[in-house]
Amino acid sequence: MRDVAIIGVGITKFGELWDKSFRALITEAGTKAILDAGIEGKDIDALFVGSMSPGRFIGQEHIGALVADSSGLHVMNIPTTRVENACASGGLALRQAYISVASGIHDIVVVGGVEKMTDVIGGEATDILAMAADQEWEAFFGVTFPALYAMIARRHMHEYGTTREQLAEVAVKNHDNGLLNPNAHFRRKITVDSVLNATMVADPLTVLDCSPISDGAAALVLAPLDKAKQYTDKIVKISGSGQASDSLALHGREDICTFKATVEAARQAYKQAGVEPKDIDLAEVHDCFTIAEILAIEDLGFVKKGEGGKATEEGRTRIDGDIPINPSGGLKAKGHPVGATGIAQAAEVVLQLRGEAGERQVKDAEIGLTHNIGGSGATCVVHILEVV
Amino acid sequence: MRDVAIIGVGITKFGELWDKSFRALITEAGTKAILDAGIEGKDIDALFVGSMSPGRFIGQEHIGALVADSSGLHVMNIPTTRVENACASGGLALRQAYISVASGIHDIVVVGGVEKMTDVIGGEATDILAMAADQEWEAFFGVTFPALYAMIARRHMHEYGTTREQLAEVAVKNHDNGLLNPNAHFRRKITVDSVLNATMVADPLTVLDCSPISDGAAALVLAPLDKAKQYTDKIVKISGSGQASDSLALHGREDICTFKATVEAARQAYKQAGVEPKDIDLAEVHDCFTIAEILAIEDLGFVKKGEGGKATEEGRTRIDGDIPINPSGGLKAKGHPVGATGIAQAAEVVLQLRGEAGERQVKDAEIGLTHNIGGSGATCVVHILEVV
Repeated sequence: MRDVAIIGVGITKFGELWDKSFRALITEAGTKAILDAGIEGKDIDALFVGSMSPGRFIGQEHIGALVADSSGLHVMNIPTTRVENACASGGLALRQAYISVASGIHDIVVVGGVEKMTDVIGGEATDILAMAADQEWEAFFGVTFPALYAMIARRHMHEYGTTREQLAEVAVKNHDNGLLNPNAHFRRKITVDSVLNATMVADPLTVLDCSPISDGAAALVLAPLDKAKQYTDKIVKISGSGQASDSLALHGREDICTFKATVEAARQAYKQAGVEPKDIDLAEVHDCFTIAEILAIEDLGFVKKGEGGKATEEGRTRIDGDIPINPSGGLKAKGHPVGATGIAQAAEVVLQLRGEAGERQVKDAEIGLTHNIGGSGATCVVHILEVV
Repeated sequence: MRDVAIIGVGITKFGELWDKSFRALITEAGTKAILDAGIEGKDIDALFVGSMSPGRFIGQEHIGALVADSSGLHVMNIPTTRVENACASGGLALRQAYISVASGIHDIVVVGGVEKMTDVIGGEATDILAMAADQEWEAFFGVTFPALYAMIARRHMHEYGTTREQLAEVAVKNHDNGLLNPNAHFRRKITVDSVLNATMVADPLTVLDCSPISDGAAALVLAPLDKAKQYTDKIVKISGSGQASDSLALHGREDICTFKATVEAARQAYKQAGVEPKDIDLAEVHDCFTIAEILAIEDLGFVKKGEGGKATEEGRTRIDGDIPINPSGGLKAKGHPVGATGIAQAAEVVLQLRGEAGERQVKDAEIGLTHNIGGSGATCVVHILEVV
């Protein structure tokens, strides 16, 4: 397998973008990534796109062809593939694109992630997202994602003494980071008190513990490392890629406070990259709910099991902490257009490693990690990126 | 890239299977493929699955995790990926699985295709399938797939003198083949007259020119060629894999009588395999409508452009003809559970190349081809398989 580099990134504003269509968003992100890489359409060998449920959100499947068409690349009959694994669709599209370049079957590949979620009303969006859970054994009985993560939070509090305030600190920190990100869905400061006193969604999670329903897209350009310098000097290498599964339903697991898919995907990625958790300078993790970020930093090995809440409270995960988590604002503040999330995470890490993250720049960042979850942890994709 | 073999196949009955769920179907096909390959669960490195619109057909996304879970493989945290490109989802899942083995990232990979289409009523199934067309520029204005293919048929008749009877001959031949396939959705003989006099769907296509709404699943086991013999003696090599796109909407093309995505995908596959159309002993092509099979045999180079109707009428595409097409019965008679189709095509070719196709066996078959289309030709995936 060949080494693979990311040579271009593009991202749209995330938010309630009623004036932009699905195809407009993905085309905007892709065009930005292509311009950033300094390539032209004729250089592109293949497209991959991650999207969770365009069939329900916008009444369109066959997204691979749609993206080729909307970007004009169908004229060259470029192969295009959609990948779906719920909210891990973007991360998994990146992994498929990575494998296709590493294998030698393609050279220059564009991979995008996109979701247009605000064209349906809130209740329907919740129904659609519930399709990432086990429809027959969870969603059918009325369990929504906030409810599943609330159960995880309650158990984590019981097992490890994690406090309600520690959960809130995740949201406060990610909103502080989002203030520094021009593309973030939410750019306003919140406090622990405002999280605690916000509308209850599923006890103990209030609405400020939950990531929003967002529209948006992000894209990357991949190339074989040995050819990357032909196009640009801004090269980041994909040094590790891991993927794992777990039971679709939460009740199928021995322990709901550890996501085994995260542990296994991270093990693969660390091994391939030849690094350990302590070598990671920053990480973009899947904070769909505040408790999810606490699980993530534990399962990725940044802190000991059960100490995620404490580490957050102590400020260790802030941009100036010893393990900066979600400098972009994360899903919580940057927004969570589900299919775009995994690609947007990688886009943020690339910008950080290139020293182009502006006010939210993590100092001396050389190795970064992305962590993208599908459902309540049934899919996990982890990538490790390094400055070349 | 390593050579890749198919070492196991499994297929369910296709039809209106109201007593079998989506997860039961894919698990049945996967289990059959695993048993056929002589492997065990612990040998499997990854799963891929093609499915077009489970989000609309059964209210479930996150299909990769669902399949791992329903097959019990989540216990080993096996990575699972869903691929979607409309009715080419199965063929494209096979291509991703192939690339993952060829790259060296995985050894033993199971790839399945599945769709459960009969849990919604007919009109809704048509709406769901229309999401493979351009929703904003075709489906929104009331154009359904039979209508799109009817326009292609009318134009083909105008350009090349293809007759209504020649279209019907495709259906008659495929029903004759389906009679010989125990898993086929339809196992009854039809005649040219019965096709011509059936209920009109979209002029000139009657209901007997159209493939049915079916439930079903199919699966394959892939392995590196040099390790395949460890597991089984029944080895077929994937010698070529091609994929291409075209405009999503039919109106975006210069010529609707040629699917450029087919021509380009076939060019790639022939080149990789080092063979020409005349070397192919049999093909499973995407006959979602009778006109589609005529386009396919022309675009794949089996006959000259415009002569597909004549070749069919002359019996050249029958099991005992010089280029047997769809010995399984094709989408028309075997059935068309859309996500399963591309995998089922490969399963049929493998059985033919192994000499295990029973009454429908093509004599001396050594090289076979599969041709899987998404939408009205916006995606095409072609594979060439050879006896080792």
